[in-house]
Amino acid sequence: MKSIETICEYLLNGDNYLIIMHDSPDGDTVGSGYALCRALRAIGKRADCACGDRIPDKYDYMTDGIGDICTTYDHVIAVDVATVGLIRELGKRYAGRIELCIDHHDTNSLYAAHTYVRGDAAATCEIIYDVICGLGCEIQPEIAECLYTGISTDTGCFKYSNVTPRTHIIAAELMKTGIDTARINRIMFDTKSFEQLRVESMALEQMELLFGGKCVVIVLTQQMQELAPDDDLEGIKAITRQIKGVQIGVTMRERAQGEYKVSVRSNPPYSASDICGALGGGGHMYAAGCEINLPLDDAKRKLIAVISEVTGL
Amino acid sequence: MKSIETICEYLLNGDNYLIIMHDSPDGDTVGSGYALCRALRAIGKRADCACGDRIPDKYDYMTDGIGDICTTYDHVIAVDVATVGLIRELGKRYAGRIELCIDHHDTNSLYAAHTYVRGDAAATCEIIYDVICGLGCEIQPEIAECLYTGISTDTGCFKYSNVTPRTHIIAAELMKTGIDTARINRIMFDTKSFEQLRVESMALEQMELLFGGKCVVIVLTQQMQELAPDDDLEGIKAITRQIKGVQIGVTMRERAQGEYKVSVRSNPPYSASDICGALGGGGHMYAAGCEINLPLDDAKRKLIAVISEVTGL
Repeated sequence: MKSIETICEYLLNGDNYLIIMHDSPDGDTVGSGYALCRALRAIGKRADCACGDRIPDKYDYMTDGIGDICTTYDHVIAVDVATVGLIRELGKRYAGRIELCIDHHDTNSLYAAHTYVRGDAAATCEIIYDVICGLGCEIQPEIAECLYTGISTDTGCFKYSNVTPRTHIIAAELMKTGIDTARINRIMFDTKSFEQLRVESMALEQMELLFGGKCVVIVLTQQMQELAPDDDLEGIKAITRQIKGVQIGVTMRERAQGEYKVSVRSNPPYSASDICGALGGGGHMYAAGCEINLPLDDAKRKLIAVISEVTGL
Repeated sequence: MKSIETICEYLLNGDNYLIIMHDSPDGDTVGSGYALCRALRAIGKRADCACGDRIPDKYDYMTDGIGDICTTYDHVIAVDVATVGLIRELGKRYAGRIELCIDHHDTNSLYAAHTYVRGDAAATCEIIYDVICGLGCEIQPEIAECLYTGISTDTGCFKYSNVTPRTHIIAAELMKTGIDTARINRIMFDTKSFEQLRVESMALEQMELLFGGKCVVIVLTQQMQELAPDDDLEGIKAITRQIKGVQIGVTMRERAQGEYKVSVRSNPPYSASDICGALGGGGHMYAAGCEINLPLDDAKRKLIAVISEVTGL
């Protein structure tokens, strides 16, 4: 499906849709899933949402009132899911049945029967906005809240380089429905627990500076992660990029002894995607991830070697 | 002057303008001043900018290339200056000569001969955008960078409740000139020095929780302030509002023994403006300031009593 029109035609012609969101759900996948689900129901279709992981409480305002209503699914759609690796459990059940994937990751592995990818969209929610308009469905405040959340979270509240004029134009349209965007942004960005602040302080104290201050590495040990809920630790990735002079921020989360989930955030001209790609991972140009399964010192050594090789630092 | 049209008429009919920005200049006053100055020069007028305090280096991209060109001033304009108290030195020289004040503070004290205030504008830069369009001046990238900076800084990057659909529409128009908004936002929001992070950690460790966690008070002693440049400490005010459950964030900066500059940030329904007003200060509904000249313990006691009285907590 090469256009919004063909997607709308497909949606208008069927019924009983299952909309799959990626594991470790973020604002964009939840916003995309629930906005589309609410819109389909609003035009008289049956649709449910599914996610392999529990959806964090902070997203309650998007999911409220949307319990499952279908008994069987005729069509399976994935939103903001770049690879089947991001839907571990649901993938086992539905991978072969996904008819349409709507996504904004240029790295999409094209696992679905049809894929609509727009890499220039700051968030999948930007594309879902176009789809919902194309369906002839009025954007109700509940839908606007979902779409705004996806756009706001994937752009660091309109801060990052993925924002385009169109991003702001859609935000303006969504605000016209009367939604309280300041409240959404408070929940998404300005709500840190004391535990989170404590772990952040610890992480910053132990932070390592590399390549003359151009790169920092933060390690979150299992012990530190036990102090704060998983969800609270997401913000630490953003911190690395906030430090003056730092162009590449690396966060290493210890999953188990010798197993690290690595997040890389970069500023132009450095490509987080290239760095993680060289380590078997991937993602966006300036926000990517990979896994390194080695003891900490070896893992760091490997990472530093790859950063040096890829960036020329 | 009751409309953008009359302001434009006034600007088109004269020459030799001095544009005054407020002391302790922020992104909105600098953005307003330099955008207007650049626009007036672009349409063949002579205009200069003036500020009582040194403009921080981080704003260099707005001020670059705009040295003084006038020998005398026929007209004096103030932008984003709510009271003459905010232009201490310049006020002495020009207070009686300010013909026009363009501002978005509802609390403007109407000290100028003519005042154009739009309290629903998220930033004075939103109004300056309308003025520049009204002058028939094309928005060049250099002007767009100034206006975007003012809007972005006064809204916490589109995060706060002062944002309207119009704010996003103007941002979209400014982006269309090709400016690198991510770079501006990195400079404004994501560039913390190590010293700043260290002072933040110290401040957070000593933070006091009041009214069952609804209010936090952070004290920056003179000693702590010596560790980081003045400008680096601005961000701490925002931190108080980020903590889960906190509705009123207070930052007390020790100016001298027994002299505190107090910043209050609040979330609805609590009014920072009411709290600071009761202490002889003022500002916006959710971001205001005042001074308390008492020993620390007495200053805190007074502040807590006023918060309780004003908010009913």
